[in-house]
Amino acid sequence: MNADPRRLALALGHAFKREDLLEQGLTHRSAGAFNNERLEFLGDALIGFMIAEALWERFPEADEGTLSRMRASLVKRESLAGLARGLRLGDYLRLGAGELRTGGHARDSILADALEAVLGAVYLDAGFAVTQTVVMGLFAERLDDTSAAQSGKDPKTRLQEWLQSRKWPLPDYVVTEIGGDQHDQIFTVSCLLTDRNLCAFGTGSSRRRAEQSAAQAMLEQIEK
Amino acid sequence: MNADPRRLALALGHAFKREDLLEQGLTHRSAGAFNNERLEFLGDALIGFMIAEALWERFPEADEGTLSRMRASLVKRESLAGLARGLRLGDYLRLGAGELRTGGHARDSILADALEAVLGAVYLDAGFAVTQTVVMGLFAERLDDTSAAQSGKDPKTRLQEWLQSRKWPLPDYVVTEIGGDQHDQIFTVSCLLTDRNLCAFGTGSSRRRAEQSAAQAMLEQIEK
Repeated sequence: MNADPRRLALALGHAFKREDLLEQGLTHRSAGAFNNERLEFLGDALIGFMIAEALWERFPEADEGTLSRMRASLVKRESLAGLARGLRLGDYLRLGAGELRTGGHARDSILADALEAVLGAVYLDAGFAVTQTVVMGLFAERLDDTSAAQSGKDPKTRLQEWLQSRKWPLPDYVVTEIGGDQHDQIFTVSCLLTDRNLCAFGTGSSRRRAEQSAAQAMLEQIEK
Repeated sequence: MNADPRRLALALGHAFKREDLLEQGLTHRSAGAFNNERLEFLGDALIGFMIAEALWERFPEADEGTLSRMRASLVKRESLAGLARGLRLGDYLRLGAGELRTGGHARDSILADALEAVLGAVYLDAGFAVTQTVVMGLFAERLDDTSAAQSGKDPKTRLQEWLQSRKWPLPDYVVTEIGGDQHDQIFTVSCLLTDRNLCAFGTGSSRRRAEQSAAQAMLEQIEK
C-alpha cells in the first residue's frame, strides 16, 4: 500500500492542482503505459537549468569548467537519489510486480528518475517560478555544502570573517524550532545581528547544518 | 570593425536594457577576462531546457529516448552554429588577435558558444518568458523540420513540398555511380535543381535510398 502522494507534495511545498500529474510522476514504467518516463525527460532538463542558474549566481568568480563540475556533482544519480530518500519518495512509488519484488523502491536509478519526473510534474502544474522555489528548497543544503566546499570555508566562518573585517559584532545563533519525526528531526535556526536589526533563518537535519544554512542566508542578505 | 550589437538584438527580437550583457555574450575568451564563458554555461542549460519543453509539448506520443535524440540533434554544435550564421552573429563577435587571424568568426564552436552566451544574456536581462519567446522564434523552423521528420514524411516528399510551396521546379534524380561488390552495391545519386544551379549527392545500398539521401542533402542546402 502506497503512502498518500499529497504528503509528498506537502514535503515539497507545492499542493498540486492536477494530482494526476503527481501520480504519473510517481509511476515507474514497470507499472504500465501511464508512467513517468516523459516527465523525467522534462524534469531532468529543468533541474539542469535551475541548478546551473543557482550556481551561476552563487559563484560569480567560478569559471565555466568549475560550474559544470559543481552541477554534475549536484544532479548526478546518487545525489538525486539521496534527495529522494530525504523525501521518503520510495514510499509513494508505483512499481510493477517485478520491481516491487526486487526492491525497486530503494534503487538509486528509480528514485532519481522519479524525483526528476515529480519536479517535471510540478512545472507543468504550476510553472517556472513555483518550480524554482521548490527546486531551490530541495537543493538548499546541497548548494550550501557546495559553497562551503568551493571556498574551503563554511558559511559560519565566512560570515564571521565578513563581520570582523567590517568591525561589526558577531551573530547569535538560536534554535527556534525543532520539527519532523523523532528519528528525522528538522532544526530551524535564526542567525541574529541584533544591533543591525538583521535576522536570517536556516533549516537542516542537525543543529550544525541549520546554523550553517542560517549563516549562508545572512551572508546573502548582507552581501546584497 | 564590428557591427553594432543592437542590430543583432533586433534580429533576436529583444532590445537589451543592459547592453553590457549583450556585449559580454559576444566576447570570446581570446579577447580578455570579460568574456562569454560563464554566460555560455547558463545559456547552454537554458536552451537545453526550453527545447526539451518544446519537444515535450509537440510530440505527446514520443518516448523519452526519441525526445532525447531529437533534442541532441537540435542543440548540437553544428545546429547552433547554423542558427548563429543565420543571425550573422560572426559579424558582432569580439575576438582576440589570434582568433581573428585564424578565422574564428566563422568557426562552429565559437559561433555556437556565442549564441548560447547571448541567449544567457537575454535571460539575465529579461527573464524566463521573454527568453522563451526569443528561443522559440529562433528554433521555429528547426522544430518544424523535426516535426516533419518525425511525422514520417520522407526527404523526397519534404523536398517536393518545399519546392512546390515556393513554386520552384521539381528536381531530377540521376544515378551517377554504382560501386561496391555485385552483391553489395553502393549507389550514388545526384539531386539536381538545374535552373537554380544546385546539386546535392546521396549514397545508399539501393537507388531509392540514395535518392532519399540526396533529397535530404538538398533540403539541408536550400534550408540554409
